[in-house]
Amino acid sequence: MRRPDGPRYTRKPKPLPKEGERTPSGTHNVLRLIPLGGNEETGGRNCYLIQYGQDILVIDLGLQFPEDDMPGVDYIIPDTRYLRGKEKSIRGVIVTHGHYDHIGGVPHLVPQLGNPMIYASNLTGAMLQKKMEDVHPGKKLRLQAVKSRDRIKLGLFWVEFFALSHNIPGSLGVVIQTPAGMVVHTGDFKLDTRAHVSNRTDLEYIKRLGQRNVLCLMCDSTNSPVPGHQMSESDIEGNIQGMFTQTKGRILFATFSSLLSRIQQILTLAEKFNRKVLVEGFSMRTNIEIGQQLGYIRVKSNTIVSWEQAKHLPPNRYIIMCTGAQGEDNAVLMRIANREHKYLRVEKGDLIVFSSSIVPGNERSVERLKDGLYREGADIIDYKMLDIHAGGHANAGDIIDFIRMVRPKYVMPIEGSYSHLIENKKNAIKAGVPEQRVLLADNGQVVEFHHGQGYVTSHRIPIEYVFVDGLGVGDINHIVLRDRKQLAEEGMVIVVAQVTRSGKVQRVDVISRGFTFIQNQGRLLSEVVREAKRALQDREPRTAPDPKDLREKIHRHLEKFLFQRTHRLPMVLPVIVEV
Amino acid sequence: MRRPDGPRYTRKPKPLPKEGERTPSGTHNVLRLIPLGGNEETGGRNCYLIQYGQDILVIDLGLQFPEDDMPGVDYIIPDTRYLRGKEKSIRGVIVTHGHYDHIGGVPHLVPQLGNPMIYASNLTGAMLQKKMEDVHPGKKLRLQAVKSRDRIKLGLFWVEFFALSHNIPGSLGVVIQTPAGMVVHTGDFKLDTRAHVSNRTDLEYIKRLGQRNVLCLMCDSTNSPVPGHQMSESDIEGNIQGMFTQTKGRILFATFSSLLSRIQQILTLAEKFNRKVLVEGFSMRTNIEIGQQLGYIRVKSNTIVSWEQAKHLPPNRYIIMCTGAQGEDNAVLMRIANREHKYLRVEKGDLIVFSSSIVPGNERSVERLKDGLYREGADIIDYKMLDIHAGGHANAGDIIDFIRMVRPKYVMPIEGSYSHLIENKKNAIKAGVPEQRVLLADNGQVVEFHHGQGYVTSHRIPIEYVFVDGLGVGDINHIVLRDRKQLAEEGMVIVVAQVTRSGKVQRVDVISRGFTFIQNQGRLLSEVVREAKRALQDREPRTAPDPKDLREKIHRHLEKFLFQRTHRLPMVLPVIVEV
Repeated sequence: MRRPDGPRYTRKPKPLPKEGERTPSGTHNVLRLIPLGGNEETGGRNCYLIQYGQDILVIDLGLQFPEDDMPGVDYIIPDTRYLRGKEKSIRGVIVTHGHYDHIGGVPHLVPQLGNPMIYASNLTGAMLQKKMEDVHPGKKLRLQAVKSRDRIKLGLFWVEFFALSHNIPGSLGVVIQTPAGMVVHTGDFKLDTRAHVSNRTDLEYIKRLGQRNVLCLMCDSTNSPVPGHQMSESDIEGNIQGMFTQTKGRILFATFSSLLSRIQQILTLAEKFNRKVLVEGFSMRTNIEIGQQLGYIRVKSNTIVSWEQAKHLPPNRYIIMCTGAQGEDNAVLMRIANREHKYLRVEKGDLIVFSSSIVPGNERSVERLKDGLYREGADIIDYKMLDIHAGGHANAGDIIDFIRMVRPKYVMPIEGSYSHLIENKKNAIKAGVPEQRVLLADNGQVVEFHHGQGYVTSHRIPIEYVFVDGLGVGDINHIVLRDRKQLAEEGMVIVVAQVTRSGKVQRVDVISRGFTFIQNQGRLLSEVVREAKRALQDREPRTAPDPKDLREKIHRHLEKFLFQRTHRLPMVLPVIVEV
Repeated sequence: MRRPDGPRYTRKPKPLPKEGERTPSGTHNVLRLIPLGGNEETGGRNCYLIQYGQDILVIDLGLQFPEDDMPGVDYIIPDTRYLRGKEKSIRGVIVTHGHYDHIGGVPHLVPQLGNPMIYASNLTGAMLQKKMEDVHPGKKLRLQAVKSRDRIKLGLFWVEFFALSHNIPGSLGVVIQTPAGMVVHTGDFKLDTRAHVSNRTDLEYIKRLGQRNVLCLMCDSTNSPVPGHQMSESDIEGNIQGMFTQTKGRILFATFSSLLSRIQQILTLAEKFNRKVLVEGFSMRTNIEIGQQLGYIRVKSNTIVSWEQAKHLPPNRYIIMCTGAQGEDNAVLMRIANREHKYLRVEKGDLIVFSSSIVPGNERSVERLKDGLYREGADIIDYKMLDIHAGGHANAGDIIDFIRMVRPKYVMPIEGSYSHLIENKKNAIKAGVPEQRVLLADNGQVVEFHHGQGYVTSHRIPIEYVFVDGLGVGDINHIVLRDRKQLAEEGMVIVVAQVTRSGKVQRVDVISRGFTFIQNQGRLLSEVVREAKRALQDREPRTAPDPKDLREKIHRHLEKFLFQRTHRLPMVLPVIVEV
């Protein structure tokens, strides 16, 4: 599939701007909403700008995990070139919650943006600072903690925060009062009025928003195609409790280290059923510590034990909480399955609970992980067999309810692939928003409001993938990736030809990697040498040889030869050495 | 995850053989069931052997699509080395139905096996011959058509066939009477007594099997973890019909070209609602032709039209049937989404129906395909939004019913990853089979029956992946793939050093691909040249230089340098040229 570097529907521009569509921008006193990332991917590098004249707010700076056709890339961060030279206009960076797709770009990008103040809940702030230390040891972020119902002035914006539920506590929705009207940004959310108090939706505040003439609601689209309503974290409590009552051996709960609400739930049940808890996985231990320090995690002082303590306990007196439910290569669960964990092995009677859904793209790895654990003798329960995972995002039914409460004039679907944005558009229409008041924008596409009217303009800020690979940020691009793809799929053949100044071929050596199995190479390689010599000899003998010309000849000739001979297209790299 | 080249649970052998477990093999008059492929993967290279003394039957010769960590591999076929030297013992190859994971290895392997006779339904046979022509133009297979309730003698085996339902007609279950008892092999199946007659389950025959003392049932595990019962093809007819009555524009049905039952259903409805049908995609056209010739597809002579005819029709007077519902790069639907199709573009009012489930691993491609189609202005319906796809495999409930009807002494779960086999074991136990009579075997692991007792032996035939890449079969291996993976994720750096006989470094050139972005390379590359020279100079000056030693030096030094400098590990390839 072609990359979305130039979305195709821009090729048929419509002639006249209508409400909800496009209009030339550039007017003064205009409110602009610009997705720098998050609107063309699921679980993406979320980053949204709110701009009015010289005042800019940045909401979230996330990271996106790479696609299959981006080998070796660690992750992708938002393209913030638009903000270059506008650093002084940034009135603040607001981070809605502590998940990587909302915070992961911060360590790389905040220094580039002139270290603006970051506004986030205390839990999100602690996770941000932790992430900063991982990338730039010892460096501190400028952080200001905010909480639900806080109201602060940032430049000419008044900003309010309100509690929304997600599967991490301290998630905040954001309300921005601008001179052009009020904008609401949901971050990731679901409606859950039965969740633990640290994660409960502030329904009263949301209902009051309905009286405040919201101009535009920027609304999470992650679960927009899923019909009905999302489960509450309290809905799954009975099933998790059932495992404690029915399991005679150990229970291993594998989940995301950031699912702090789930972690709290399991800790509470462990205490209720008189089991100790062994926590495995660095990120999970760190997050629990942060959660404890800030009061989001409540656990008795002797509940969490070390392996030294746990190993003396009978199997039915402790549980293990660990990372790796997505089949990640180096996480705890995979190491247990592979018998590579320092001290944990599957024991007879172990029940392993996959208490999270599978992120699209990870299905095969999870299947292999389960195979390994079953082979080791464990029994397994996952969210498809039993309701033991409540998602973190509002389903279609919840979104419709939410829009009906907020009663915005416009809805701008955010945080999702184009398909998800379209499905969320359908939800908005079902909630009573006229079709032309649903504003669908790509990454980089500017949405504007003039005199209370909203438009998706034809103005597009250039957006590219910014790849992080090892220590490099932005130093690999689509050419590097194209080469990597060819190397991966076809391998390569290096031809080193020693040629005299007069053009006589002294010697040709061939090295190949990733092309074909060495035992069978003998004959093929000698053919390659012969063909390379043939290519070099095929030239006007009276002129001096031009190395570039010789390389070109070898390249063309061998690509053709190898394709005919093998139906493969390895990368052919000729090296001419003048001797 | 470690590859399953040596499944780990063999490391803890149990001391004493019990029924259902292991016993030393090698006895005469023993019945052997050996999975050569299909028992460690979903949708895999299915291949099962039935051996009694000098008589061998091969059931299916499929292909498996590669995993993410096998770049460039086209597909994987069964490892049939066990049959080398036993060609004369092969009494026949039985192919249960015409899907790639059951027929795809035939063109590559049947010639190697001495061209044994192939027994299959006439539709499966026609598809086999088609596949043979694709790989070896002009070559004919030796085929004998069989049908439900046929009974034939192959060596000392009596073999019967019976109709099972699947999402391709002509699917057959196989009953093999051996001197040691009766074995039943399901192939892929579901129970569907309401399907079209060409695809209806022969329930009467199955019930009679229950009276015939079946020794061992080899049972499809594909949907073993899915609770409840599979839908009938007739269950979805109402929903598909609804699309015809409610859609005012064109309808594009995208599905697998091998889903002939679905294709028939859509053709029938098109005729009922007075629409013509444009068929797009070479494989779909071919399969429809084969289906028509053999009477599996019934369609009026003027229903299927060409684009020349269709383009003059109003949108509500024709439909399009095409391939590409899995997001495959070059299939019709992707070309339409990318505006690369010769004449088809999305038109306003088009409804695109994804009438198949998503194969695990394809989720992201399908999402991108949908994004593209939505951008083009289509509306989309998939099987998650509406029941428009009935799967081809029995769910847990059906499997339990089936086992209860067949009443086998032993059950051997086949066709699935280890997790699926384990889940199917649970089904067999629910159906009343004692746990020790469920025989779980890996690929290559020999199951034996002596005196009516079944054992999973510790005898393992070596099984490796046999990769097909371009014209090469078996000429790439795990070393080639490991190199491809490194090349893909880290790129490579070639260092060409010209060194005199006395060891003086004349010149060093560096070429890199897939490593870092060219603009930023300048400084880094000159550092690499400097470091390579440094490595070459670091030697005892009084001895003549050994090229191998010099290569080793550059390799070690530069790998370390590049990792420190970039946190990447590109493949370093030093070339020493003596000048």
